[in-house]
Amino acid sequence: MKQKRLRDYGIEIGELEPGSRNAITDVEGVTVGHTTLSNGDIQTGVTAILPHQGNVFQEKLIASSYVLNGFGKTMGTIQLNELGTIETPIILTNTLSIGTAADAVIDYMLEHNPEIGRTTGTVNPIIGECNDMFLNDIRARNVHQEHVHQAIASATTRMEEGSVGAGTGMLCYSLKGGIGTSSRKMEMKNGTYTIGVLVVTNFGILRDLRVNGKAVGKDLKDALVQSWEEKDKGSVMIIVATDLPVSERQLHRLIKRASPGLARTGSIMTTGSGEIILGFSTANKIPHHPTSTTTLSLETIHEEEIDTAFRAVGEATEEAVLNSLFTATHVIGRDGNERPALSDLLDQFDIQLT
Amino acid sequence: MKQKRLRDYGIEIGELEPGSRNAITDVEGVTVGHTTLSNGDIQTGVTAILPHQGNVFQEKLIASSYVLNGFGKTMGTIQLNELGTIETPIILTNTLSIGTAADAVIDYMLEHNPEIGRTTGTVNPIIGECNDMFLNDIRARNVHQEHVHQAIASATTRMEEGSVGAGTGMLCYSLKGGIGTSSRKMEMKNGTYTIGVLVVTNFGILRDLRVNGKAVGKDLKDALVQSWEEKDKGSVMIIVATDLPVSERQLHRLIKRASPGLARTGSIMTTGSGEIILGFSTANKIPHHPTSTTTLSLETIHEEEIDTAFRAVGEATEEAVLNSLFTATHVIGRDGNERPALSDLLDQFDIQLT
Amino acid sequence: MKQKRLRDYGIEIGELEPGSRNAITDVEGVTVGHTTLSNGDIQTGVTAILPHQGNVFQEKLIASSYVLNGFGKTMGTIQLNELGTIETPIILTNTLSIGTAADAVIDYMLEHNPEIGRTTGTVNPIIGECNDMFLNDIRARNVHQEHVHQAIASATTRMEEGSVGAGTGMLCYSLKGGIGTSSRKMEMKNGTYTIGVLVVTNFGILRDLRVNGKAVGKDLKDALVQSWEEKDKGSVMIIVATDLPVSERQLHRLIKRASPGLARTGSIMTTGSGEIILGFSTANKIPHHPTSTTTLSLETIHEEEIDTAFRAVGEATEEAVLNSLFTATHVIGRDGNERPALSDLLDQFDIQLT
Amino acid sequence: MKQKRLRDYGIEIGELEPGSRNAITDVEGVTVGHTTLSNGDIQTGVTAILPHQGNVFQEKLIASSYVLNGFGKTMGTIQLNELGTIETPIILTNTLSIGTAADAVIDYMLEHNPEIGRTTGTVNPIIGECNDMFLNDIRARNVHQEHVHQAIASATTRMEEGSVGAGTGMLCYSLKGGIGTSSRKMEMKNGTYTIGVLVVTNFGILRDLRVNGKAVGKDLKDALVQSWEEKDKGSVMIIVATDLPVSERQLHRLIKRASPGLARTGSIMTTGSGEIILGFSTANKIPHHPTSTTTLSLETIHEEEIDTAFRAVGEATEEAVLNSLFTATHVIGRDGNERPALSDLLDQFDIQLT
Repeated sequence: MKQKRLRDYGIEIGELEPGSRNAITDVEGVTVGHTTLSNGDIQTGVTAILPHQGNVFQEKLIASSYVLNGFGKTMGTIQLNELGTIETPIILTNTLSIGTAADAVIDYMLEHNPEIGRTTGTVNPIIGECNDMFLNDIRARNVHQEHVHQAIASATTRMEEGSVGAGTGMLCYSLKGGIGTSSRKMEMKNGTYTIGVLVVTNFGILRDLRVNGKAVGKDLKDALVQSWEEKDKGSVMIIVATDLPVSERQLHRLIKRASPGLARTGSIMTTGSGEIILGFSTANKIPHHPTSTTTLSLETIHEEEIDTAFRAVGEATEEAVLNSLFTATHVIGRDGNERPALSDLLDQFDIQLT
Repeated sequence: MKQKRLRDYGIEIGELEPGSRNAITDVEGVTVGHTTLSNGDIQTGVTAILPHQGNVFQEKLIASSYVLNGFGKTMGTIQLNELGTIETPIILTNTLSIGTAADAVIDYMLEHNPEIGRTTGTVNPIIGECNDMFLNDIRARNVHQEHVHQAIASATTRMEEGSVGAGTGMLCYSLKGGIGTSSRKMEMKNGTYTIGVLVVTNFGILRDLRVNGKAVGKDLKDALVQSWEEKDKGSVMIIVATDLPVSERQLHRLIKRASPGLARTGSIMTTGSGEIILGFSTANKIPHHPTSTTTLSLETIHEEEIDTAFRAVGEATEEAVLNSLFTATHVIGRDGNERPALSDLLDQFDIQLT
Repeated sequence: MKQKRLRDYGIEIGELEPGSRNAITDVEGVTVGHTTLSNGDIQTGVTAILPHQGNVFQEKLIASSYVLNGFGKTMGTIQLNELGTIETPIILTNTLSIGTAADAVIDYMLEHNPEIGRTTGTVNPIIGECNDMFLNDIRARNVHQEHVHQAIASATTRMEEGSVGAGTGMLCYSLKGGIGTSSRKMEMKNGTYTIGVLVVTNFGILRDLRVNGKAVGKDLKDALVQSWEEKDKGSVMIIVATDLPVSERQLHRLIKRASPGLARTGSIMTTGSGEIILGFSTANKIPHHPTSTTTLSLETIHEEEIDTAFRAVGEATEEAVLNSLFTATHVIGRDGNERPALSDLLDQFDIQLT
Repeated sequence: MKQKRLRDYGIEIGELEPGSRNAITDVEGVTVGHTTLSNGDIQTGVTAILPHQGNVFQEKLIASSYVLNGFGKTMGTIQLNELGTIETPIILTNTLSIGTAADAVIDYMLEHNPEIGRTTGTVNPIIGECNDMFLNDIRARNVHQEHVHQAIASATTRMEEGSVGAGTGMLCYSLKGGIGTSSRKMEMKNGTYTIGVLVVTNFGILRDLRVNGKAVGKDLKDALVQSWEEKDKGSVMIIVATDLPVSERQLHRLIKRASPGLARTGSIMTTGSGEIILGFSTANKIPHHPTSTTTLSLETIHEEEIDTAFRAVGEATEEAVLNSLFTATHVIGRDGNERPALSDLLDQFDIQLT
């Protein structure tokens, strides 16, 4: 059965049009792959985002990161911000598997780039994480290097959402969370561009959840006889992709604007919830080896056009978070810990979304 | 006639209780003064926030700033962040009057501290601003030093909101904006603390306005036959005061959480809208001259208690922004430019808030 | 008599060649003007740096700032960093005159840009400062707006150094400091570029001074019978100009490398010494109003060529600081406070530089 | 034979006294362990710094990081800066082994803290790196988890320097570099404190090397008939430990002052040389679980006393870098690549240090 997404419930976030898939993969060249490990106490996985389909080490993309709340272990942002580029796939997994994921990405990069560590320098893997310890036996370290390689190898434009990949064991607003995505088209003076957002949601407290402004979380909380632990120890990873030509500075401004979208779903950025945004633009490829003796010509938009992009990223982030909730499925995991799916509860308690 | 605030319309933001005045002045020791210049083409003013009632230069407070969007001219944040302290009143005014305001604060500080520039160093004035050029003849530079001194001298716990002080000529969500405030009480393990927020609102586009989640701006936009220029060239200044004992790092984390509150009123942080947050805590006074040879003992909360404060600052910011809109009055200013009051439009078009 | 600069003593810093003037004005289009107020208790002034000879508001330059030590009151860096551009002359003066200087720059900008505050937004003045209270009656606020306008009007490529302009009352390594400048030529694959540095020196303690590695400060300290207060309450402002095509990110990296040059003169970055770097590149002009519907094309160097520029800015900074010391003259100021010139002491005590 | 350190050559850096070991381990509670892998093409290793001898997860220390040049892959700084604490040993190794090192630290922490991932959250490993690809077959990934565990287990106050641990395959100023350390005692009003610095040096170009101001690198360069590749693709990791009571903000200011010390050895911070500083203070222990309902009392020095610490960290960094050079031994590694020891060259060419 096809998963119902937010728009299947008749709800549209914002005023801009989504791309054809309403997914991060609407940005030309971007693909996403998941490895899902779901079996009893094991509820975890890996999600890989490939920024383009060539060799990302040889043709880097302009990239930026923004830390809303730094209670998180994301790797690779120091170099990403210094050089303003990304040179590997982005890997998302559980918090205690970042070392394994880094090792796997390094192996993958070494295999495809024999010059690394010989005639050129090293490589900067980008790894993001959330903590899935409630549903997953995170201490067992069930993510292995081959799971990372599988996620990369399976990357496609037709990505899945919900309780898959890195989102397998995640919680959101005390319900089952996971992977969500959305996109927006942007009409600029000189053409149409796309921005796409992918999130791993693992944050929030039920009573704070809002769907397009409506306090659905409070309605649900009131309807439920029994409730769950309401301590937010989660995180959210937000990945922003665009084909808009932007400088590193503009991209940094742009990805910051994911934050209002997140806030409108109800997030108060609790202390334990690491909230980290990574973004890249496919518009300018930066060659690892200069191909000429002349200067680089970096194409960028006029700053005064950027508001459309600011609006787009906020809308897509809000919708991606909600998509992660609407597509997630009921999961029973470690020691019988479980969290329901929002979609099941809406049916069960006849909660109105509009 | 007493101004109607948001709660007078039966709307409560969030779940925490406000302080007795529901104002930044609920934080013990904090007072606010306005100088309002409203006469034809002149629609501007000054707002002064006194962090405590003693000599702030001699007894500094822990302070922090956070730049959401740096398209603004706020002065004094470099030193404030380096040393983690505030040592003057905070002055808010129009963008082209920051020099005048700085001069006035320096004069005020020199007068009260004969040692400055003689036996001790200089002083770091904190000046924030928004651009009121639509309603105010900002080029005429109508704010003079005495207006700053008046605002300081008139500071009181019974502060006014709306089209007063620095808010006299400001716009918010394409309507008349201005000064707004709100506060929250926080129950912690070892006592009750207060957080207060004051805003100068001068940002946003009508159709984005949300009141407690409801898309009131869109409703209004649909109701209006004629509309206004929808270009956001504004700014918002957010001042956070608290008596919670926090380190500079904790305070920095805390004031960041004004941002979800702002976002929930509809802000998308447009490029032209400088959004800057300044905060201070009255809990630890840092003496200008060390009073002993021993180390300082800085009282701070346990990090795990901070979520209550994070929730409080978001709620108070959201409500302060809305209070600025609900209390603002219709203003006709420069060249006949005008903006209506939200309260008038709600009556006129019978818009429901709940 | 012509001032003797460092190279007139036979000392060359580093390995790159200086430009023809060995000054910031070797960067095409950059001019510098001073207003010097030197009369008894009044020992202060204004220095203006014009980034190019056109209308800087209409044709902005890529700019960046870097705070080594934020105990300073520099204005305008929030917007400069957010938008990555400079749109006014840079004004340097004493700490308590920043408000006056801001007012003066605003007036100047309004006069030359009638659209500001009417059909376009406001303007972001860039003001830097150091504290000259030892030699200057800083409380008397002797810098007036016309002094700022004079400094701007008198800007020229043939700039003076030493006890002039903003440097009139400054101290450096417990001696008389002031204005210093230096430049370097950079051979890149596609041409020759220039980097220039201007400093206002007002920091350091005599015994730390090193001249091209040699501990000249310690030698002097040992030679002197009587000594001076050795408390460092100063600051240093470092202005970096270049015609190298760089992005905001690259420029930020570049200006950071002024810091090793500063360190090699002996600075330990004491707490009271605000150390702030401002930089701009004349290579890309960013129009205030977009002139076309197409994207902007921003010319930048390949990152791997940047080391030459890193070396250049460090060398020029080291030499500029030393030039400020070697060209400064003995000044007797407020209440008879005085500081000798390094050049006089070298003669008097026969200190060898090599 | 005992290694000769800088002071054994009669050279003293700065004016403050070192601690009894002149090492980071002069800070009470700090120990250091090395695993050295030196065998033909394998020239790499691991260095572990234990911040105190208890359970660092249960009793965290105030910590901070500062990125001079972010071309590096250091892990863990996002959370370290957000929460201002360190909760694991610091592990240093080669660039492509950061994933392995992270995995090993996570295992170590899980073993000693059964509550992680069950009743409390996860853990934030701190891993630093430099690129030893010239002397080491870095692609072979010869660092295994047990090497990390060995380094932790062997930590002692009597630490080795030179071509050991993470420094085994590193280069510095085109010569053999590696591990160096130094310390300083600080007399404050209320007692004596210690600051210690440990570096892994892997940066710089021979002709830039200065020893206490003297251009020893240029002298050597002139003496050498044959020279080496002078491309700087290195990094330097600087670890600062102190028992001085400081807030996170003060510690951040403090560790920044390692930078002048680094600069005085000749560093120009080339683009490819990641320069990253990590610091912690043992003075305040922050319990993982609050032990009372009252607020925490954080002991800090008065800001005006901090200059002694600023001076100390610069001196210790300068001396630690030089110690790494003076104690390093000639190494022949991957594919016969080799670099001489500075001490051998000084003898061979009779270069004078003073």
